[in-house]
Amino acid sequence: MTALETMRAIIVSKPGPPSVLTMSHLTLPEPAAGEIRVRVHSFGLNRADLLQRLGRYPAPLGSPQDIPGLEHAGVVDALGPDVEGIAVGDRVMGIVGGGAYAEYLVTAAAHVVPVPEGISLEYAAAIPEVFITAHDALERLSVQSGEWVLVHAVGSGVGTAATQLIHARGASCIGTSRTESKLAQARELGMKAGVNTANGEFAGKVLQVTQRGVDAAVDLLGGAFFPQTLECMAHRGRILLVGLSAGTKAETDLGTVLRRRLTIEGTVLRSRSDLEKAEAVAAFRDAVLPDLASGRLVAVVDRVFGFHEVVAAHEYLESNRSFGKVVVQVG
Amino acid sequence: MTALETMRAIIVSKPGPPSVLTMSHLTLPEPAAGEIRVRVHSFGLNRADLLQRLGRYPAPLGSPQDIPGLEHAGVVDALGPDVEGIAVGDRVMGIVGGGAYAEYLVTAAAHVVPVPEGISLEYAAAIPEVFITAHDALERLSVQSGEWVLVHAVGSGVGTAATQLIHARGASCIGTSRTESKLAQARELGMKAGVNTANGEFAGKVLQVTQRGVDAAVDLLGGAFFPQTLECMAHRGRILLVGLSAGTKAETDLGTVLRRRLTIEGTVLRSRSDLEKAEAVAAFRDAVLPDLASGRLVAVVDRVFGFHEVVAAHEYLESNRSFGKVVVQVG
Repeated sequence: MTALETMRAIIVSKPGPPSVLTMSHLTLPEPAAGEIRVRVHSFGLNRADLLQRLGRYPAPLGSPQDIPGLEHAGVVDALGPDVEGIAVGDRVMGIVGGGAYAEYLVTAAAHVVPVPEGISLEYAAAIPEVFITAHDALERLSVQSGEWVLVHAVGSGVGTAATQLIHARGASCIGTSRTESKLAQARELGMKAGVNTANGEFAGKVLQVTQRGVDAAVDLLGGAFFPQTLECMAHRGRILLVGLSAGTKAETDLGTVLRRRLTIEGTVLRSRSDLEKAEAVAAFRDAVLPDLASGRLVAVVDRVFGFHEVVAAHEYLESNRSFGKVVVQVG
Repeated sequence: MTALETMRAIIVSKPGPPSVLTMSHLTLPEPAAGEIRVRVHSFGLNRADLLQRLGRYPAPLGSPQDIPGLEHAGVVDALGPDVEGIAVGDRVMGIVGGGAYAEYLVTAAAHVVPVPEGISLEYAAAIPEVFITAHDALERLSVQSGEWVLVHAVGSGVGTAATQLIHARGASCIGTSRTESKLAQARELGMKAGVNTANGEFAGKVLQVTQRGVDAAVDLLGGAFFPQTLECMAHRGRILLVGLSAGTKAETDLGTVLRRRLTIEGTVLRSRSDLEKAEAVAAFRDAVLPDLASGRLVAVVDRVFGFHEVVAAHEYLESNRSFGKVVVQVG
């Protein structure tokens, strides 16, 4: 290894539209103790990447500040000191605080899992963020068999993962989307009922379908939708805020929260401590990965772009046309 | 027992100011299976009584609809079938969904506890609601030793109970009040820091005192104060909404909830199921009652009114001058 070794990476040259994403040559990163270097095959796009590109969501401390990318699949290329149970050449996938839009990245060994045999690396790149997030969400919500669970933006990556995991728990998923065809696709993943929110209204329909309201909600929208989400909740219902695509501010009826004894919890994966991330990854590996390996659960890949097409990939994700994940193949 | 036996009770003759509270003569209620009849010695006033009088907080199903009163202390007067471990003549105190503004009330035997020796019945009437609510709140918030806990309206009945229970857990209470003398009194109950909210601002001071923000909040205000309460929260902080004196609607920054991974939970005692109330009462009996019996915890009684002074008692509670509880002595 010499100081001259470099890699290609996509950086945010300045805050702005997709065109600010620029191919650069950077020094190859070196793994420290407990870390591995991964030669990235593919990475998944996340809405957080769009916000980061706009300068509205800085990378967490300790992560590359200018290279976006929260998840990856690839091949282990080098090991730092004190890494056990993993070898150069292993196929892995995992989550990072940033830096996946690159040919190589360095990550804690505890933040990757093996890619099961028979799963391609571009498919694997669509798995970590959405399945770790969705599994973690259902655990936090303590979703039980027989419950109704509202999933906003059911056609998003997290939505498609949550739909399947809710169904696998014996609970009933009611999903929202502005696009009828996405609701149809979500039904094939196990969604029990769908509500089209194109006209902005959904609470009435949710209450009509579920009668008593929903026991839990995976909220990827927040903002202007939040008052209606509260209305949808059954007595002692739990809301997990996972994303805020519809805005960060909401007029909240605390009277409803109090009377129905609701719980609202905010969660975010990206900024968690290394230890907490390792715990979430381990929980995913134990509880979800076997079902991905067997095909009982599926990652939904809408489209795979080339490394040089990352601008188009961002434009596509921003268009809200995708169902499931948008992936970029690096190598 | 004949059908002619009657009792005096205070009823809400129509929604309105304190003067709508009227002394009436009603038929003596009969205890059903699992119930006891209590000859009420004294009852405590609660803010919910004021709302109920205004017609804005109807009594829960199964409770007297026109007689307010959520807590009482008195002497067991009659037993229904299938009541064990309690005898006529026992001194008891407890919570009810309504009906305590009366000479007699009927309640589930599981919703009362014995009044410890040496504690007077007018003092006992100030105990159940605030100590059951405050203990239940700290349990829900999982308050741990070393944490900072924000208590709004620290001079309220629940505030004075919460302050002592927080201190007893080895946690630090930071309380708010608009009245400097109430902050001084709360310090004597173990409050570590106080913030005067007379000018409407408190978040800056709370953050200045605690540095990292508070780990938990017992919120009796809600409404216009809520945005600042959110600002006060440390990473992974928990807010329990117990009351909404400052209003039911709040502009909420969901971005803060998500980024700091906060939890907001609403709770209310009055409308819980009989079983849940019995559980809360049992938890209070086991964890709190011994310390009330020993004097390690104290109920703060601001003033005791006579049965015919209930209008004045409501006016006094509404004036916000009281520190701790306002009690009415019936017999």
